[in-house]
Amino acid sequence: MIKLLVDCFGGDHSPQAPVAGALAALAKNPDLHLILTGDEAILRKELEGKAYDAARLEIVHAPEVIGCDEKPTDVVRLKRNSSMMKAIILLRDEDDIAGMVSTGSTGALVTGALVRLGRIKGVIRPAFCPILPTMDGGIVGICDSGANVEVTPAHLRQFAIMASLYMQEVYGIKNPRTALLNVGKEAEKGDDIRKETYALLQDTDCVNFVGNMESRDLLSGSYDVVVADGFSGNVLVKTTEGTALELLKKLKKDIYSRTLYKLGALLMKRMFLEEKEFMNYQNYGGSVLLGTSKVVVKGHGSSKAVAVEKCIEQAYRMEVSHLSGKIEEAVARYEHYED
Amino acid sequence: MIKLLVDCFGGDHSPQAPVAGALAALAKNPDLHLILTGDEAILRKELEGKAYDAARLEIVHAPEVIGCDEKPTDVVRLKRNSSMMKAIILLRDEDDIAGMVSTGSTGALVTGALVRLGRIKGVIRPAFCPILPTMDGGIVGICDSGANVEVTPAHLRQFAIMASLYMQEVYGIKNPRTALLNVGKEAEKGDDIRKETYALLQDTDCVNFVGNMESRDLLSGSYDVVVADGFSGNVLVKTTEGTALELLKKLKKDIYSRTLYKLGALLMKRMFLEEKEFMNYQNYGGSVLLGTSKVVVKGHGSSKAVAVEKCIEQAYRMEVSHLSGKIEEAVARYEHYED
Repeated sequence: MIKLLVDCFGGDHSPQAPVAGALAALAKNPDLHLILTGDEAILRKELEGKAYDAARLEIVHAPEVIGCDEKPTDVVRLKRNSSMMKAIILLRDEDDIAGMVSTGSTGALVTGALVRLGRIKGVIRPAFCPILPTMDGGIVGICDSGANVEVTPAHLRQFAIMASLYMQEVYGIKNPRTALLNVGKEAEKGDDIRKETYALLQDTDCVNFVGNMESRDLLSGSYDVVVADGFSGNVLVKTTEGTALELLKKLKKDIYSRTLYKLGALLMKRMFLEEKEFMNYQNYGGSVLLGTSKVVVKGHGSSKAVAVEKCIEQAYRMEVSHLSGKIEEAVARYEHYED
Repeated sequence: MIKLLVDCFGGDHSPQAPVAGALAALAKNPDLHLILTGDEAILRKELEGKAYDAARLEIVHAPEVIGCDEKPTDVVRLKRNSSMMKAIILLRDEDDIAGMVSTGSTGALVTGALVRLGRIKGVIRPAFCPILPTMDGGIVGICDSGANVEVTPAHLRQFAIMASLYMQEVYGIKNPRTALLNVGKEAEKGDDIRKETYALLQDTDCVNFVGNMESRDLLSGSYDVVVADGFSGNVLVKTTEGTALELLKKLKKDIYSRTLYKLGALLMKRMFLEEKEFMNYQNYGGSVLLGTSKVVVKGHGSSKAVAVEKCIEQAYRMEVSHLSGKIEEAVARYEHYED
């Protein structure tokens, strides 16, 4: 039995999407047990009339609401009865709970997870690893993408180790081709941090390091893992999503500008729907936080039920594959500066 | 009369594209005078049979070739008779030459320009400012995008001042809306450099600072100038270009996968050509180096004639608008730490 928490508030489609996603995941995985956190009355109402195995679904009452403009540190300190903080505290206190999924505030989740859960032994800094689809039908993981805006080469090496293991254990990618995000391919490119990291990664035998990657090659399908500081990793991921969305919007607008184009688009309707699905991040699950002592998956704030279900799947597979233990083992093989 | 140099070698389509671009620019601007640098015999041959005003076109012989893997510092020191270094030295030595255009190695050009040309008085660090098209039909300038991988808040403030003036003087955008690239919109987002820069820009009255920008909003049309360190600015620009190109490639591949789609695409042919043109960076000129004592414009290595012509146009307009003098005046109004 795998026990996971689902924070049912804080997302754009809460609590409908988290609840529906939870029920879908429950139906698919007979050994999954879920605990929903949030306002109990609202959650009970949302569950009304729906079919599910009540023996594998619990509700923990957590009525406090986190405001948009609340500081993460204040949330962690003062909002212990919010759906997110309640989940984090339960995750810390209950040995049999393996992980949690949330679509709430990223800042509060990172801060809460770091302060309350702590890290896997040996890990200096937990980091986010979202997944993007590549043009050859594969996927690529980007680590870090926002948890650490300032990093050292030792941090980056650990991001490479953790993300490689994640792509291998959770997505079945053997020997993930791992690259360092840089401003050019040559080894001597970038600042001192990049140059030192390049050398460190060449010496990290558990990582299949294939050199520097220029950001224009992210979607080419040539890489399985891209290692970055949280600032430029964030730019990389959000620029990709933003450009894809803006282009689709433009295409749609242009199609509607002429009858002839509308006719043409009609013939291509299925293709356009497929492109839209291909670029829909809802299909690729959430951004996992690698390196925390227990599994934490962050879904987009705009996640719908299918995206929440994918996040629960990710958490489930991280636990089933014993990812934490493998990360602990791997990082122990290299000396790391403590911070 | 505006006198500009065109480095005719080092690009993918050299010397055909630079020569053709130069002739097109000459034909359009009666007060333009161009000096082509490169192997004279090859250039003479390229010009053979073409119509142009010979009184406004010179050739300066520079036969040395820069290899792909040569270190920029070596190029500057040892390749004085290459088309690029010859142009830089002439630009430095001849008062009546206003600027240069090159599609050669970026590293060599930056290093050469910094070492040989020097900076506008008061400017701490010159920075690149490429232009991207926005979805509402406008443009946005990104500064820096690669010349400085490590920066301070004082550098970033100057990038904002220089790029604002550039967009105003060269593209006629009044009061350019200027944003700081960050991992979130809120003032307290990012590392210490971003937080300090945010405060500095609020105090910079010659810049219309509109706050932080998340990278997913780059193409939205809400911004005229985006200020970034050279590392994340480079990621921002190249990710946008890469994503757009990969998506177009995927679309094309998918269209060819079914006859029905091919039929539909036939009806939309003109639209697809327009989208392709819209995303073709060849139409938006080069990346100007802001802050050097004379005008330097870097075209993409893959520039064709039309792109080179646009680069010459940019250099021409920078000179005609007295951009350097305006930058000198503006930066003098603020105290800057020297480096």
